[in-house]
Order: sequence, then structure tokens, then C-alpha cells
Amino acid sequence: MNKKIVVIGANAAGAKAAAKARRTNPKAEIIVLDRGNFISYGACGIPYYLSDTVKELKELMSTPVGVVRDANFFNKVKGVSVRTNTEVIGIDRERKVVRLREGAAETELSYDKLVLATGSSPVVPPIENVSLPNVFTVKSIEDAELLKERAVAGAAACIIGAGLIGLETAEALQGKGMRVTLVEMRDQLLPGVLDPEVAAVVEKQVKLQGVTVLTGSAVTAFAGEGRVQQVIAGGQQVAADLVVLAPGVRPNVALARDAGLAIGVTGAIAVNERQATSDPDIYACGDCCETTHLVTGKKVFIPLGSTANKQGRVAGINAAGGEATFAGVIGTSILKIFNVNAGKTGLTENEARALGFDVETVLSPAPDRAHFYPGAKPILLKLVAERGTGRFLGLQAAGEGAVDKRLDAAAAAITFRASVEQLSQLDLAYAPPYSAAMDNLIVAADIMKNKLAGHARGISAREVKRKLDDGDDFILLDVRSPAEHGEIGLAGAKLIPLGALRERLDELPRDKEIVAFCKISLRGYEAQKILDAAGFADVKFMDGGIMAWPYRFRDQ
Amino acid sequence: MNKKIVVIGANAAGAKAAAKARRTNPKAEIIVLDRGNFISYGACGIPYYLSDTVKELKELMSTPVGVVRDANFFNKVKGVSVRTNTEVIGIDRERKVVRLREGAAETELSYDKLVLATGSSPVVPPIENVSLPNVFTVKSIEDAELLKERAVAGAAACIIGAGLIGLETAEALQGKGMRVTLVEMRDQLLPGVLDPEVAAVVEKQVKLQGVTVLTGSAVTAFAGEGRVQQVIAGGQQVAADLVVLAPGVRPNVALARDAGLAIGVTGAIAVNERQATSDPDIYACGDCCETTHLVTGKKVFIPLGSTANKQGRVAGINAAGGEATFAGVIGTSILKIFNVNAGKTGLTENEARALGFDVETVLSPAPDRAHFYPGAKPILLKLVAERGTGRFLGLQAAGEGAVDKRLDAAAAAITFRASVEQLSQLDLAYAPPYSAAMDNLIVAADIMKNKLAGHARGISAREVKRKLDDGDDFILLDVRSPAEHGEIGLAGAKLIPLGALRERLDELPRDKEIVAFCKISLRGYEAQKILDAAGFADVKFMDGGIMAWPYRFRDQ
Repeated sequence: MNKKIVVIGANAAGAKAAAKARRTNPKAEIIVLDRGNFISYGACGIPYYLSDTVKELKELMSTPVGVVRDANFFNKVKGVSVRTNTEVIGIDRERKVVRLREGAAETELSYDKLVLATGSSPVVPPIENVSLPNVFTVKSIEDAELLKERAVAGAAACIIGAGLIGLETAEALQGKGMRVTLVEMRDQLLPGVLDPEVAAVVEKQVKLQGVTVLTGSAVTAFAGEGRVQQVIAGGQQVAADLVVLAPGVRPNVALARDAGLAIGVTGAIAVNERQATSDPDIYACGDCCETTHLVTGKKVFIPLGSTANKQGRVAGINAAGGEATFAGVIGTSILKIFNVNAGKTGLTENEARALGFDVETVLSPAPDRAHFYPGAKPILLKLVAERGTGRFLGLQAAGEGAVDKRLDAAAAAITFRASVEQLSQLDLAYAPPYSAAMDNLIVAADIMKNKLAGHARGISAREVKRKLDDGDDFILLDVRSPAEHGEIGLAGAKLIPLGALRERLDELPRDKEIVAFCKISLRGYEAQKILDAAGFADVKFMDGGIMAWPYRFRDQ
Repeated sequence: MNKKIVVIGANAAGAKAAAKARRTNPKAEIIVLDRGNFISYGACGIPYYLSDTVKELKELMSTPVGVVRDANFFNKVKGVSVRTNTEVIGIDRERKVVRLREGAAETELSYDKLVLATGSSPVVPPIENVSLPNVFTVKSIEDAELLKERAVAGAAACIIGAGLIGLETAEALQGKGMRVTLVEMRDQLLPGVLDPEVAAVVEKQVKLQGVTVLTGSAVTAFAGEGRVQQVIAGGQQVAADLVVLAPGVRPNVALARDAGLAIGVTGAIAVNERQATSDPDIYACGDCCETTHLVTGKKVFIPLGSTANKQGRVAGINAAGGEATFAGVIGTSILKIFNVNAGKTGLTENEARALGFDVETVLSPAPDRAHFYPGAKPILLKLVAERGTGRFLGLQAAGEGAVDKRLDAAAAAITFRASVEQLSQLDLAYAPPYSAAMDNLIVAADIMKNKLAGHARGISAREVKRKLDDGDDFILLDVRSPAEHGEIGLAGAKLIPLGALRERLDELPRDKEIVAFCKISLRGYEAQKILDAAGFADVKFMDGGIMAWPYRFRDQ
């Protein structure tokens, strides 16, 4: 059947949907409309263009072999006609037409099947002066061009929001020699992405690189005349020659809503597994629609270029008369910020608890490959599992080493509802340049098994900090070597190296609470087992050891 | 219950079993026996010690925090007594004792539970002169020390066997300035690991680095008096100041066989999921025992340090009275050779066909991250799936970029019996420094879906080469740009760039076989779809494009 397929939006999801529709139905007429000037660019590349990591704009708009994906390319190669600078201002579902505005002219275009790929827009907080000319968002190529002009070395930049885009922008502007302050309402970086102790790895690095971090600081005012000069946040005045708004994005649903299409609980367009909206002749894909979280079964709004491509493919096939489905996501995300890689897949502890899961967690820091292999770098893993069932719910990872591959393997495992036992037995690729004989994931899963079985009793650094602050009566036992102990440590800790512990049991009280710790927590766990076996009553170890301690050390 | 647990072998599996037995049963008496001098070293690190990548021997025997894992460490920290230079010469299962030889003395040691971790030994081919003093194996620290002494710059080394160890050794000796020849009986490198077109990526790199490669060359003689001077292989004479035997390893099963324990079909010790041998009081783990391949359900002998640790954990728990199981492996392996990373998980095409699977394959070369992100490097993926069911059977990957993470994600997916459809929807970690918006795995899976559905018709480079060599009457259609075509190409190919194809259909015969190709095969596939839609009768594309062409190019 010949069809007329109209796609609204020519970036990741829309471009993919159009190309796939063409391959599915060689006879269809396929028209892509975009209100902007640039099409099919890698929006995720904008921060890298801003930082000059990517030098030429056209690199973001090219295929891997260097062909620019412009309207001509789509016409010649994909057999799809693209009309830029064409805004859709309404959908008449009864007559199956869209109303267009091109320049001053308004016209109509009929469709048999319509694909909405209208994307998302930065949230702009309702604060006075937010429209002043030195306040920017980072979403479009136009945004990046403007910001590049204004990013002057020595000037002050204030970035509002410490999510993925806020952090990537902080790095880009810092790299241009600006004095950058990152302002975040919540009390940690990446609040929607990572639990606090994993976010602490990122925060440490961001501060090391000279960025000023103000967490727990809501913006209350933009002070200035004609242009913002100060951001007032958490009661502090932050100098700002320019302001970047990065508090997140919201889906562009106005067209869909005005046309009477169902909007989901998340505020994004509701779609089924075929990416069909509540109107079977209209599909939606990419940042404008919601999707299903495969761990929880709940609807979520998690706009990402990777998901947009998968959804675009499905929408394109179905719009062209084929049959395809997209099951959903598990909330995987990752970023590179200075020298640190950080990300998550599945549920964080915070997310899992909020959803009512009874969770156990493991913090496991270790080198990312065989410790003897040159270039090994530390990474911290945080595993989240469900007590009782032993179900693997989520992984977070942060550090200078290879976190992405642990996230990807975990993403696959979580998708298939792996248990921690199954995770611990994965046949991952091992040779010394790639991992230790027991990969970080396997080690973390083994610790989790020990915890779930009640053999290992860990407590968090945060809980230890609270005990210290509250003056609790307990023994903090450092089981590292004297050299390690001398180098860095926790105030008030008693040193008994693990190798001497069996001989020095008499130095410890048998009935008092003891919290053992080491560098990464394996020796801490060994110490717990030795003291357990010797009949000590209340022994735990500190999860993740010194490497996961996000607070000040002794003598600092 | 207090028990006496005796472990034979103090490397990966044995050391792990002993440590885990101690944690499982704090009261047990645990004794580890090893005939060698060194214990608990990373045997997989031997090639890196040989190459001086790892400078100090003790690094291979240390924990990640630098503590040497010697007998004292095991005693003090693990609560396990280790006796080195102690060879077990027999097991009396009725009396539950092992017979020991320490120096000249023979004694007995009783056990309640016995763990065999006797490892594997290099295969020594039955060729005259194989025992001459300049013929080496690469397995033990002693081997490495000897080889290091003899590896003189400018001298000739002949390595027999192009498996993982053979290749790693070739790189190490080449790095020391030796003139290295690699001799392999089969007609490709890594014959037990990779299919030929993926192994070709490795071979290209190995030759580029100056190693002479002789495949399809069985060794027939070692010529020389007092020391080998020439290796005679495939009718050629290869000069050899030293010879390294690396044709593989076999499990050390003599003790087990002599004690009447069941030996499996693979020649390794038979064990159940609890790592118990045919005697319920005797466990086996590591390189000496076989395991189950989770894709095929068949028993396999795939000795690896990663598997040894998992099995050691299970054997240790069970020997100490706990309960644990190890399900099996999926044949994952990886190596770094010069600048190339290469590996596999699940079944190769060769393996799958030999097992009777009806398979489809995809070759997909692409940059390992967003093509616009600096440092992107190419990798070639080969996907193997079952026709009909769409089951994902295996992945191979090779190239300078990140192949390990694709293998790990695929390993998890294969373990959970993912379909290609499920693979294509994995929510992998995406940001430009880590992958394209559509990860290489997702792209390959999408192509596989197109092939399984009959939309995409690929043929292999090998088949195209055969057609060219046989003078078949067909059109080889290059759909790349004129610039790409000019730079490198295939003899006899007709150039019509993809963007011009729709307008130049008249230049092609409608009924003749046409094989389209490009750089990586996406444009080749587009060309097939365009020609299909235009009514051409017999159009295919060449899998993997120019990047997967392992033969000479035009003008070479």
C-alpha cells in the first residue's frame, strides 16, 4: 500500500523513523518537517562542540564516513524529503492534516500516518530576569554558538543544575578558562542519577579541577540590570558574567496535547509498545514520549539519544505498515566529567527504596583491570539488590577507569532479571589488560551474596560518620598495614593489621561494637570473619573502605 | 563440624578454594599443598612478565594493595597453611589419605575433604628433539625466567601455535627485538577462538608489527644438534635460536585418574555443578576439570583464570560444608595483541555450524564511540544467530577500539538466552565518549534482524572473492564516494555513489546478480533496498564492506 507518512522533527528519532519507514515501504511518500535550520545532528555532541573537543559543527551532522546528513542527503540517499524552517502549528486528526507555518505562510499537509518526534526543551525556572540576554540554555546548535561567543577566559559562569548537561557544560566552560560555579538545589551532584556516595567521587574530581560547587542551594534570584550579574542561591551571591540553565528538560507535547492525544503520567506523550499514541494513525518517538521502565514496569520519562534511535526505528516501521515493538529502558546513563566516568543502570538505592524494595547494597572499589597491568585505574561500584529474592536491581559506577563496560554488562543482566548469583557467574572477557581474574562486577556480586546470606555485615561510610559525630561507643578498627595507616586514615581508629589480628585478639573488647575497615573492604570483611569465628559479639565492616569515604580524613 | 580439608595446588583455583573454605568453616583445618615454589600467582600475567610490561615478579603474586600472597600471608591472613615443594604422588580414597613427597621423604596426610586444583600443562608435541634445551613452554614463572634470559635482540624465535599464549608470547619476544616467526598448523591465527574473517584483523596487525606468520604449516621436525637450529614447518625451514611451544594445554589429571575418579569426555576431570568429582569427598576446580557450555549444554575444557576463581569459590564452600553451585561458561575469551583487542563469547560461526545450528551471521565494522568524539577507533563485530528462533548465539570482536565491553554485554545476553530482538533493545550506556547513539552491538543486531527477516541479503567477502576468482558473471557495485573509491577498492568494481544511485539505475542490468559494497556495509544495504524497490532481480550486499575485506585491494 502506498502511504503518505509525515514526520515532525528531523533529529535523532525523526530522522531514524523516516529512514526506516522508507526501507520498510519503498513506495511510501515520506516527508520530514522541522522548525529548525539544522537536521539530524547529534544533540548529545553539543557540550563537546562547546568545549571545542569537536571542532567543526558539521562533524556532528555527518555519517561516520563524513557525509553531511542534510536535506539533500536525505533526499538522494534515503529517499525522504525534508523541509526545514517549517513549523507544525496544529494537527487536525479528523481530516488527517497538519497545519504548517513556513516563514509568514500557513499551509496544510495531509498524512496517512503521522510520526511525532518533537523532542524536548530545557526547563526554564520561573525566576525574574531569567530572560536577560546573558542567560543561556544548552540544547541546540544555536545555543552552543551563542555560548561559545560569550565564554571568555577569566569571566565567571554560573551553571544552574548539576545533572548530566550541567556537568558537561561546567567542564566545557572551565576548559575555556572561565571561573565556573555549579549550583544545585539538591544536596549532591547528579541527584537524579547517582546515590550520594557515588556522586561524591564525581564531586571530588569536579572540585579538584577548580569548579566551585554549591549543593543544597536553590536559586532564588538573578540580580542585575539589563544582564544578570549575580545569582542568589542558598543565600549566597554568586558572581556571573553568564548563566547557564541546566535544571533538566521537559518533553515538547503542546502539539500532541492540543490535538487531544493522551499525555502520560510523566507529562510526556503516552505510547504503547508499537510507539503508537492514543490515535492509531499517530506514532511518537524520542524525547517527546514516555517509555516503560523494565525493572519497575512503571512509565518513565528518560530522554536519551540511544533510546530515541530505537524508538524511531520502531515508529518508522509501524508507520510504514510493518510490525515492530520497543519494550522499554532500564534507566542506564553515563557521563564523562574531567577524568571521571560515572553512570548507572537499573535502580539506585534511593530509587529502589522509594519504590518500596527491601534492598541490600555493596560498595566495591577496585582497579579496573589486573592490578599489575600498567594503566590500571580505580573504579567504585555500587550494587543494589533485593533482599529475599536476591534480584539484581541496579549498578552504579564511578572512577577514572572503565566503568562503561561494567554498566553495559549489568544492563544486559538486569534486563533479563538476573539474580545476584547469576551475575556472579557471568563469563566475562578476562585477560590482564581488561580486568582482574575476578572482574569488579563478579567481586561485587560475591560480596553481595555474602551479605544477602548474612555472612558479611557491612555498614555505610555515612553511618560510620554519624556514629563518630554522635560520639557512639564503638571500636573503629583499621586492619590495613602500618604504612597505609600512616598515610591516610580516620580519626580515632585503632590499628591492627589484618595479618596480626589472629594474634592480637586480646586487645579488642569482645562485647563492644567493632567496625573494621581497610582500603577497599575485602580485608575489613576478612577481619569480621576472623572476629566472628573468635566469638566477638558485634562486628561489622565499613562498605567500600577508605576508598568510599567521602568525608575528611584524619589530620585533614 | 570441624573438618580437615586438603587442597592440592596453590594457584588461582586452589588458593581461592582454601580461602573460601576458611570463611565458610572457621574451625576447619585447611592445608594447601603445592609441588612448586611459587604460589598464588597470576599465571595469566606470565606473558606480561616476559615482555617486561610487568617489571617485578612479586607484582604477579601480590594483592591489589601490594601484599605478597606467600605462605606466611595465607597463614596469617587467611588462616590456611600452605606447604610448597610438596608433591602429591597418590590418593588413597578408601583410607582418605594423600601420599606426599617432600624432597626425598614420602609421607601421608589424611583428609576429610579433598580439593583437586592440579591445573594444566603445556602440550608437548611428540617430535624428535623437542627436549633440546632451547625449546621452551610458557606456563610457569620458571619458564618465563628462562625465556627472559634467552630472549636476545636480533636472535630468531619460532613460536609453535597461534593461540592466545602463542600470540602474547610473539608480542613479548618481538618487543625484545627478536625476529619472530609464528607457525600455526591450521590456516588462520587463533583457530580455536575466532572465525577466519575476524582472525584476519589480528593477522594483519601481527604482520604489520613485523612478525612472520606461517599458517597452514604443521611442524614436522626440529633440526639441529644439541640445540634446535631450524624448525621445519609446512615444508619450510624456519631459523630458530629458540623455540616456544604453545600448541595449547591439557589438564593435569594423572592423580585423579590413578585414584579412579571419573574423567570426562574432554579428558579433564568430570565434576557436577557443586564441583564434586565422582567421589563425593573430592572436589575439583580450575584448569584440571571440565565444565558445561551454557549455550550447547555440552561438556567443554576451557581453562581460564576467571573460571578457575569461580570454581574454586564453589569447591571451597562445598568442601567446608556449605552449599554452592557453578553453572558453567559460554566460551568467552579475549586477548590484546599489539594494538588490537580481539575476542569472542558464545559460539563462533564455525562452532555453531559444527554443532548443527542453522546460522545467520553479520559483520559490522564501525568506530567504537561517537565518530565525532576524539580517539574513536574502529572495531569489527561478527554476530552469529540461529535462523528460525532468532536466538543470539555468539559475538566476535576485533580492532583497536573497545571490544571488551561489547563482549561483556553480549556474554550477559547470551547467558540469558537473549534473542537478537532483545539484544537490539538493550539499554546500553550512551554518551559520545563511550559509543555512538546506536552502540555497535545494537547496529549489528539491527542488521541481523533485517537479515533474519529476509530484508537484507549479505554475502561474505570470501564468497565475493570466490566469485571474482572463478570469473562469475556478476556486477560488483561500489556505492561509496568517488574519493573513497579512488583511495582503495576492489578490482573490477563499478562505481555509482549511493546518492546518485536512484538517478542512475539505467546503468545497471536488471536481471544480473549485483553485489553492492561500501566501507562498512550500511550503504551497501541501502543500495540493495533501493535496487530491490526498483525491481532489480538479484541484489545483495557484501557483509562488512571494504573494512572486512581480508584480501588484497585493487592496485595492491
